[in-house]
Amino acid sequence: MANKRVYFFGNGKAEGNAQMKELLGGKGANLAEMMALGIPVPPGFTISTNVCADYNKRKGKWPAGLKEEVQKNVAKLERAMGAKLGDPKHPLLVSVRSGAAVSMPGMMDTVLNLGLNDDVVAGIIERTNNPRFAYDIYRRFIDMFGDVVMGCHHEYFEHVLDSAKKKAKVQNDNELSADQLKDVVDKYKAVYKKHVGRMFPQDGADQLKLAVNAVFDSWNIPRAIKYRQLNNITGLLGTAVNVQAMVFGNMGDDCGTGVCFTRNPSTGKKEFYGEFLMNAQGEDVVAGIRTPLPLKKLSKVMPKAYKELTGMMTRLEKHYKDMQDMEFTIQERTLYILQTRTGKRTAAAAVKNAVDMVKEKLITAKTAVTRVTPEQIDRLLHPHFDAKAPRKVIATGLPASPGAAVGQVVFSADLAEQWRDKGKKVILVRIETSPEDIGGMDAAEGILTARGGMTSHAAVVARGMGKCCVAGVAELNINYKTNKFTVGKLAVKEGDFISLDGSAGQVILGQVPTVEPVLSGDFGKFMAICDKIRKLNVRTNADTPGDAVRAREFGAEGIGLCRTEHMFFEGERIWAVRQMILAAEDYDVMLEKLYSAETAKEERAIKTEYATVKKQFEGALKTLLPYQRKDFVGIFKAMAGLPVTVRLLDPPLHEFLPQDKKSQAEMARRLKISPARVKEEVEKLHEFNPMLGHRGCRLAVTYPAIYRMQARAIIEAALKVKKLRKVVLPEIMIPLIGSVEELKFVKTEILDEIAQVFKEKKAKIKFMVGTMIEVPRAALTADEIAGEAEFFSFGTNDLTQMTMGFSRDDAGKFLGEYVEHGIYAVDPFQALDQTGVGKLVEMGIQLGRSVKKKLKIGICGEHGGEPSSIDFCHRVGMDYVSCSPFRVPIARLAAAQAALKNK
Amino acid sequence: MANKRVYFFGNGKAEGNAQMKELLGGKGANLAEMMALGIPVPPGFTISTNVCADYNKRKGKWPAGLKEEVQKNVAKLERAMGAKLGDPKHPLLVSVRSGAAVSMPGMMDTVLNLGLNDDVVAGIIERTNNPRFAYDIYRRFIDMFGDVVMGCHHEYFEHVLDSAKKKAKVQNDNELSADQLKDVVDKYKAVYKKHVGRMFPQDGADQLKLAVNAVFDSWNIPRAIKYRQLNNITGLLGTAVNVQAMVFGNMGDDCGTGVCFTRNPSTGKKEFYGEFLMNAQGEDVVAGIRTPLPLKKLSKVMPKAYKELTGMMTRLEKHYKDMQDMEFTIQERTLYILQTRTGKRTAAAAVKNAVDMVKEKLITAKTAVTRVTPEQIDRLLHPHFDAKAPRKVIATGLPASPGAAVGQVVFSADLAEQWRDKGKKVILVRIETSPEDIGGMDAAEGILTARGGMTSHAAVVARGMGKCCVAGVAELNINYKTNKFTVGKLAVKEGDFISLDGSAGQVILGQVPTVEPVLSGDFGKFMAICDKIRKLNVRTNADTPGDAVRAREFGAEGIGLCRTEHMFFEGERIWAVRQMILAAEDYDVMLEKLYSAETAKEERAIKTEYATVKKQFEGALKTLLPYQRKDFVGIFKAMAGLPVTVRLLDPPLHEFLPQDKKSQAEMARRLKISPARVKEEVEKLHEFNPMLGHRGCRLAVTYPAIYRMQARAIIEAALKVKKLRKVVLPEIMIPLIGSVEELKFVKTEILDEIAQVFKEKKAKIKFMVGTMIEVPRAALTADEIAGEAEFFSFGTNDLTQMTMGFSRDDAGKFLGEYVEHGIYAVDPFQALDQTGVGKLVEMGIQLGRSVKKKLKIGICGEHGGEPSSIDFCHRVGMDYVSCSPFRVPIARLAAAQAALKNK
Repeated sequence: MANKRVYFFGNGKAEGNAQMKELLGGKGANLAEMMALGIPVPPGFTISTNVCADYNKRKGKWPAGLKEEVQKNVAKLERAMGAKLGDPKHPLLVSVRSGAAVSMPGMMDTVLNLGLNDDVVAGIIERTNNPRFAYDIYRRFIDMFGDVVMGCHHEYFEHVLDSAKKKAKVQNDNELSADQLKDVVDKYKAVYKKHVGRMFPQDGADQLKLAVNAVFDSWNIPRAIKYRQLNNITGLLGTAVNVQAMVFGNMGDDCGTGVCFTRNPSTGKKEFYGEFLMNAQGEDVVAGIRTPLPLKKLSKVMPKAYKELTGMMTRLEKHYKDMQDMEFTIQERTLYILQTRTGKRTAAAAVKNAVDMVKEKLITAKTAVTRVTPEQIDRLLHPHFDAKAPRKVIATGLPASPGAAVGQVVFSADLAEQWRDKGKKVILVRIETSPEDIGGMDAAEGILTARGGMTSHAAVVARGMGKCCVAGVAELNINYKTNKFTVGKLAVKEGDFISLDGSAGQVILGQVPTVEPVLSGDFGKFMAICDKIRKLNVRTNADTPGDAVRAREFGAEGIGLCRTEHMFFEGERIWAVRQMILAAEDYDVMLEKLYSAETAKEERAIKTEYATVKKQFEGALKTLLPYQRKDFVGIFKAMAGLPVTVRLLDPPLHEFLPQDKKSQAEMARRLKISPARVKEEVEKLHEFNPMLGHRGCRLAVTYPAIYRMQARAIIEAALKVKKLRKVVLPEIMIPLIGSVEELKFVKTEILDEIAQVFKEKKAKIKFMVGTMIEVPRAALTADEIAGEAEFFSFGTNDLTQMTMGFSRDDAGKFLGEYVEHGIYAVDPFQALDQTGVGKLVEMGIQLGRSVKKKLKIGICGEHGGEPSSIDFCHRVGMDYVSCSPFRVPIARLAAAQAALKNK
Repeated sequence: MANKRVYFFGNGKAEGNAQMKELLGGKGANLAEMMALGIPVPPGFTISTNVCADYNKRKGKWPAGLKEEVQKNVAKLERAMGAKLGDPKHPLLVSVRSGAAVSMPGMMDTVLNLGLNDDVVAGIIERTNNPRFAYDIYRRFIDMFGDVVMGCHHEYFEHVLDSAKKKAKVQNDNELSADQLKDVVDKYKAVYKKHVGRMFPQDGADQLKLAVNAVFDSWNIPRAIKYRQLNNITGLLGTAVNVQAMVFGNMGDDCGTGVCFTRNPSTGKKEFYGEFLMNAQGEDVVAGIRTPLPLKKLSKVMPKAYKELTGMMTRLEKHYKDMQDMEFTIQERTLYILQTRTGKRTAAAAVKNAVDMVKEKLITAKTAVTRVTPEQIDRLLHPHFDAKAPRKVIATGLPASPGAAVGQVVFSADLAEQWRDKGKKVILVRIETSPEDIGGMDAAEGILTARGGMTSHAAVVARGMGKCCVAGVAELNINYKTNKFTVGKLAVKEGDFISLDGSAGQVILGQVPTVEPVLSGDFGKFMAICDKIRKLNVRTNADTPGDAVRAREFGAEGIGLCRTEHMFFEGERIWAVRQMILAAEDYDVMLEKLYSAETAKEERAIKTEYATVKKQFEGALKTLLPYQRKDFVGIFKAMAGLPVTVRLLDPPLHEFLPQDKKSQAEMARRLKISPARVKEEVEKLHEFNPMLGHRGCRLAVTYPAIYRMQARAIIEAALKVKKLRKVVLPEIMIPLIGSVEELKFVKTEILDEIAQVFKEKKAKIKFMVGTMIEVPRAALTADEIAGEAEFFSFGTNDLTQMTMGFSRDDAGKFLGEYVEHGIYAVDPFQALDQTGVGKLVEMGIQLGRSVKKKLKIGICGEHGGEPSSIDFCHRVGMDYVSCSPFRVPIARLAAAQAALKNK
């Protein structure tokens, strides 16, 4: 058996079975399985994937003994069919198909009717008295064999056929007469000879060998290699070759062919579903020349065949315990099943099938969880374009945030808000977005940017809002002055309608009709199944009460990341923030001066000035306090009973200052300072690498008062909500910690402020203070840091940036090439780089828990909503993942799948 | 003994010795040692540092038993001196001094003459008949005790003395009569009472207790804490207190006092050196009221004392095996040694001492290596300002590159070159420097920048050039338009002279005279001693033949980092580089188009265009090839016989494009394109975080031809130099590698190109291909990477940036506060952060060597020339460090010290 290369199936027996996909490919394994089950499958044999590997290793030579083994199996097949290859009286005709362990478009597909030659055709005519049929299958065979096996393009044959139809003045192939078809056959042979350089092979064994080789060769054509690369398919030996006796649905009116599903693949409803054509071959159903009939009609046309077919459908579904997609042919009233496979289905159908099959006890809850992909859940949560509507795609970028959006183009956040207020739907188009654009992003239906990757500002914020976004469309030339963008020669101006497909990354001209998502009852049931199985908690990233409520509806079990910076932008607050920044800068200058004062008089003067500035700084913070408190009250209420992790201010201060001249002038006016001062301030705060600059807890080392104000706002809000008899579980999170000393310093300030609040309010509440682990050094020294932190939250966005040395705002320019060259299998900002960044995460967890055994650990980067990363988080023993509200259900499913996979 | 708190020394015996510095402080241990040696030291006792710790733990209370122990020792001292505290006839007077294990300015220093009171003074007058002397020491005692022990400011006493002098119409203290001094004493007592609130204490025991407490308290005054923080002094218990019998050099003309060195502390010459004053107390020598006499004169004035003294000097130097700095007092012709300690000396003296003492067999070679600090070597290598010249320091920044520079201010690199060509000496003043400024930096005497840290572009390049640089002077307001800078109200304009002290970070107005370094023969001898001991090889970072030659003179054993980017800027080359960048960008656009071409016709058109662009791109590279080859020929020749590690192109391409309008216009003119195109290109290449952007090997993933050209230039050059019968050892180093796949990809291209060169030239040469480890991910996956790399070179500049999340160009703004708060003990860009970044380095080495046991490993970041980092490199088992030429001797010493320390 070790050297067995060919596996026979026929007469109700098979040498293979469904478990042998690695060796026989999916198709071969299933044919063997069905045969053994007693399903009427035409007999045949499968040459194993091992042989393909061997063949390619030998650079196209058959291994010794293969020829004999194939001959033996052909002989067996001839006996089973009572026919012989090349025998004009009883000709054996076969199909040759590739079939790897994983379904793989791109490889050579199918050659039908192999075994035909001039003599056999003559014999068939004699026997069936149906020359039209005989010449038709012959010309189809020459075309297919020439094109697929010998590389003589189908176009050349098509050209002959077109001329014949023109000459005969007919529209369709099937209107050609037998004589006309015979003429076509002769011309096809001439075409073949001209392009291949040899006569069309008349010997069946030669035909078979050439076809088998063509299948093997197709494993390594660039298209197939590329497909495997793109889909990350590795470790396969090669493709198997299935050689199977032909049956014909086109031999007359007692013949037919069709495809059927054991359940409705579109809705998931439990009903027999499919379509068929009488007197036709399989390809005709697909080609769309005649309109196929719904499967139900078959019960009237051929009640016996219908009954047999539905019986087999029921049986096969029970056997495979999944919805089946089958091909069948009826030859002279006899039913044959040509293929069965797991049926592809819509997201809604997948969910319904999973839930129904559990109810029917066909599958267990665990199996149900594996039957829906996270991508399908994603699709269910966003509106999408009507699949039937035509699209004029003008450019393609990164599918940064899923969904579909239609609106009029605007180029500024302000205009987006103005037009929204007028009831218009708009698409915000920017070179890139910045925190100043938040209002406009919220107002827009979708966001389109020319720069930035999957985790650029636009992408992250859009996903957080559950808003469609296409990012990094390099072809886009945006001109803010003329208010238009161009793609090649096409210009789109302000007010023009475009549509965005956030799942495909497409920019589409005009308005494409959309379909709203329907979260059926099955969705809830399916999620409940997932929840029972998963071990990871799923929290959400939410910055507003609205987000929090939505995320709770989606099943979030708390907030894992509440960013506070957005709260600094809204309405009037930004002015207090800017006032604070100015004062903070003055404050620095004062301190410098104080140090260098040489006389007591000088010192006194500076101290007075210093006191004024300090007052301004503290005054600005005092203005911000009630705003922040109010925000937190809303969020705590929305998340009552669940933990809320609040991250203290993270971005560099320059993000809060206006960058363009007009806004700078406005700032000067409002804060009563000179425009030059504003400009100076902006320049002073400019950083070469803001990502690695003065941000996160570093702001608090310089200006402890900022975090003090935030800590006060959080605790005062928590006390307020507690008074309403709601449970509040605040977790204060310090970003960008790199050393335990830094954490100690900042924590001391925070705890001191909170102690003051408790004293003033004469009330207490439980809270935690923890840290993000997002600087590599923090992960490397996590044992030290754990001594001071009550929880860790891995910020894998920044951790990825620093560990790999990729700026997420810039890497879009070259990461594509990295993925293309296979240097990284996937964009590390989309799926966590488990080898490199993951090693640091694991180190961080191990070191942290070596000091605090029960240290609470989660992840709050974008990866928290990505399935393969969630699987990693499960494996390394995190307590929770946190992701944007719209990814919460996806995370719940992925967490359940991870729990099953890593049992 | 466990509870022993006080250690007596007297009568030629001592309870302590020189080894007990931890417990007795440096001063106390040495006094005990000398006493036991039979040196005539006034007797006394030392209260141990343990007591200080205990005292501070008890918040200022004496531990039980201490009082009794002190009393017992006072009694012993009284017996030894035949005198009693407070006894008017035979008064015991003592000095009280602090003394920790490490010399520590900032703490309470000295109280002399303790034990004086009204009665004792009267007694002294009676006995000595010298009322002037008696009142003088009394008023000094009240002043010192009031100021140092009771916090009554010296100013108040000084005020009284000034009035007295005015009234007496005299200039100097010693011109006051006994009566006048008596009056001063009375007034001092009144001042004391007014400010302290009590009468001046008359009881000797009280005086002593207060003085001891003051010493203990001074351990924790902010100034002392700050000093320990700044100097990273930790682990000390506290300070000891030395109570010692007074001797007087001011009792008459047979008295005197002085300081002496066993060798000349300035030149290192072996000669008795020092100065003294007759009839004076120690402080008078320092105060500069009278001019002291050179020590030699003492042989004439008091030949016996001189002989005794020089005998003791010889003895003590032999005993301590190091040059001694001693204080002595002669009281009525009797010589007393008050203190001996290791003498401070100039850098030149340190080197000469070390070399001489080895020759004299006083010390071993190993000891000699510990006698010179790396900072001293540094000082020897750079010109410095005449220490006696006055300086008007107008601002202080980071001491970015040592040395001294004087020149006229210029604000542009171009002008710097023009003025230099006219024979002027210039200082280049920039907000920050960029690679475009290289020419100007080279032309300037020194560089001054307003922004950037110790490893900013300006700092790194300047150190590489051995050129003085002061960086990050935040107070500097530079205005390129008006061509001036301001510091506060002071304005300095183009052409004004300034001086820079690169070792102190000072900006000085006007021209300060400089002294050129003299590398004496001793320097070479000392280095040879170091070389025998060190295990680490020392290479240099050098980009030009000139640098290479200089570094070789300094003892470099190869080049560890030859950056190739500077070669892209010189003269005409930059135009080829810019041409290349333009073509590369076009090339990208073409590729995009090629992908999206829909018809064959379209595809053909694009292919033609593509071919043109490709030609331009390759043409530009071909132009660069001979330049690069020539550079390498020069470097290989200069380094014949030693390895040369060449780093392939590292910076992002935008650094090669002009940033200002004028230069952009010039580029447009020269390359015959529109200025808009230039601007567009600059904008396209703009990155948010260039540090984490499209640079290093990432350029080669996108444009392999660039590295191919460089590999070809290196190998062609190596073959040329080999033909001259010189040994060439090229090591090709790939920067910014993050994954083994990336390394494989780039290496394949390089090896392929080199194979072509070998084939074309029909010659071969040995070479290595290795990688920098500077991205954290590379260190984390070093086992994988080692499989493909022939050597590792840790780029700890970038590794620090990414591991700690600090941009070196921006961190200057807040790192100061981090060091101030003690969050990081030192700036991690100056000294390697061994806890965090070091952990990654260790991991990288262990993982790398787990795969390749003999993997060659070095460091080429700035840390390669910093002593504590070199110590780390030695400990983790690196093969070599590489640093700028001017730091090579420092590294040789530091490596030798590391080898000794970690034996």
